[in-house]
Amino acid sequence: MNSKRIENILELMEEASLDYFLISDPESIAYCTDYYNNPYERMFVLMISKHGDHKLFCNQLFYIDHDLGIDIIWHQDGDDAIQTIVDHMTFPNRIGIDKNWPAKFLLILMKKLPKAKFINASPCVDLVRMKKDNNEQVLMIEASRINDLAMQDVINLCKKGLSEIEISQKLPDIYRKYGAEGISFEPTIAFGKNGADPHHGNDSSVPHETESIIIDMGCKYKGYCSDMTRTIFYGAISEKQIEVYELVKKANEAAEKMIRPGVKLADIDKCARDIITEAGYGPNFNHRLGHFIGREVHEYGDVSQKFDMVVEEGMVFSIEPGVYLPNEFGVRIEDLVLVTEDGCRVLNSFSKDILII
Amino acid sequence: MNSKRIENILELMEEASLDYFLISDPESIAYCTDYYNNPYERMFVLMISKHGDHKLFCNQLFYIDHDLGIDIIWHQDGDDAIQTIVDHMTFPNRIGIDKNWPAKFLLILMKKLPKAKFINASPCVDLVRMKKDNNEQVLMIEASRINDLAMQDVINLCKKGLSEIEISQKLPDIYRKYGAEGISFEPTIAFGKNGADPHHGNDSSVPHETESIIIDMGCKYKGYCSDMTRTIFYGAISEKQIEVYELVKKANEAAEKMIRPGVKLADIDKCARDIITEAGYGPNFNHRLGHFIGREVHEYGDVSQKFDMVVEEGMVFSIEPGVYLPNEFGVRIEDLVLVTEDGCRVLNSFSKDILII
Repeated sequence: MNSKRIENILELMEEASLDYFLISDPESIAYCTDYYNNPYERMFVLMISKHGDHKLFCNQLFYIDHDLGIDIIWHQDGDDAIQTIVDHMTFPNRIGIDKNWPAKFLLILMKKLPKAKFINASPCVDLVRMKKDNNEQVLMIEASRINDLAMQDVINLCKKGLSEIEISQKLPDIYRKYGAEGISFEPTIAFGKNGADPHHGNDSSVPHETESIIIDMGCKYKGYCSDMTRTIFYGAISEKQIEVYELVKKANEAAEKMIRPGVKLADIDKCARDIITEAGYGPNFNHRLGHFIGREVHEYGDVSQKFDMVVEEGMVFSIEPGVYLPNEFGVRIEDLVLVTEDGCRVLNSFSKDILII
Repeated sequence: MNSKRIENILELMEEASLDYFLISDPESIAYCTDYYNNPYERMFVLMISKHGDHKLFCNQLFYIDHDLGIDIIWHQDGDDAIQTIVDHMTFPNRIGIDKNWPAKFLLILMKKLPKAKFINASPCVDLVRMKKDNNEQVLMIEASRINDLAMQDVINLCKKGLSEIEISQKLPDIYRKYGAEGISFEPTIAFGKNGADPHHGNDSSVPHETESIIIDMGCKYKGYCSDMTRTIFYGAISEKQIEVYELVKKANEAAEKMIRPGVKLADIDKCARDIITEAGYGPNFNHRLGHFIGREVHEYGDVSQKFDMVVEEGMVFSIEPGVYLPNEFGVRIEDLVLVTEDGCRVLNSFSKDILII
């Protein structure tokens, strides 16, 4: 159990007047207990109690080989697993529920506790997970350092003229070579107009002269994710490509420059978006500027016009402006940033200068 | 829309006195509409109505490029998506909910409809999906035919002395070569005692003389899964290995022989289990005999002591007895079977004779 993280969750539970919080997201449970388990269809719940008697409800098929520092309540297939939760609650009145807890469990719990109130309490853990502690920061810095190294390997593969699929299939091995577990998401390797199609999946295309190449990739290192995009050019570059590339780079760098505690996330999005809009490409930047990241590639929190929150120290998110010109080409430049006391540390150091291979 | 499948679902909804059924499982929605979409955190619901006015609730970010033959009700990020469902219901009294619908949606719907009753209605679609129609049978037969071909390729790789991880990484390409989309689950390639450890993940082990090799693998073909296991031997085979192998093979074949409509699934499990138990290896066969399969590798339905249902024509499930001797070796032999009018068709024809490579 990570008691500091639990304490932070309990503080938010108190604000929401919750007696109990049933966490079922495996990544959130791992965040609190350092034990990751994918329960598939079975019940797996960490119960945080305002009384301090936290419990972990596990099926005997789960494999736990060391002491987690928390009471484990076991059940087997065929048992009434939900009853084991009810049996360990004292006067449950307001019960926080994980946003993704399956209806099959929630409906049974509601029947057993007809007088209790049930509230989606995921913010109580999601808001805590937004700010990375020192241990997490070390892992995220390393995950991005590995991603920088792997980017050079991928670019070398692009030079050889391999197809999108062939390159993406080599990434898991590249990451393992540098000490990561593997990919954190299915990478995008998109040549030419493929890079301008939001529905494009890697295919057997090979690169052609003057095509842009969008490379969006990330690895997982000790449970933490990296995520970076670079756009390079094959053989030659057109004037229009130079114009768009420099514009996206300018938006990326201006946004990163303004990041510090106290700034609104929506204003960072606006900064990049205004630069692109003023140049006439506003409609071609059709997604949010960034997303939060940590144990999962996409965690709670956006850098977007709609997300009303202020930057705080320890947050890690992406800055990834892009311009997509249908049937021509796309450009996206993405870094991860870690918010520091008085600014931010850009976790990716791979060059953003124009690169023609 | 596949109207025959919807009709079958409506029949079961009537038995359960449901007015509406909100299906959220992407595979079940694809089963009804032929449209597969992974909504990630967004709302995606197929509403089956007893009045016949079925609707598909979609976020505008989803990509639908052809007419699905059903009314689509669109919403955007930021909209009250649940309200769009409520707006299209007439006197909702008993509402069926998908077993895995996230609490974040269900809690909002319950608040909007305080007088309605909410029931886990997944059996209304899961029971229909258990019995494959002709179109599905054709795809599953082909998925298993491809799996038979790929098994020979994998065995050839084993001969070369590659590691477990190296072999498993080559499988997606092998399947694509034969026309499948890729793997249907992370394959198991387990050498020697690795094959006896239920928690073993493929690692960098290479095969050694007299080790057994468990190969458990499957592909996805036009959305339908295959799944087969063979156990082979490297260099030589011991007497004990011969004894255990022949026992498992006998259990596999005896179970397959008794499959026909009307037989209890639990009795098929018992048949295989009794054979293994009588030979003294009962405790070493520590899992169910089989599982149902279709669009997903594991679908609703077991061939186990606990699963109280009778075989019907069109069902497809696995028969996979195994014996696991900790720190020694494991043997598992698995086929898929398709239940016919008066027996079953074994979908895998790859030899079960002892094979030493």
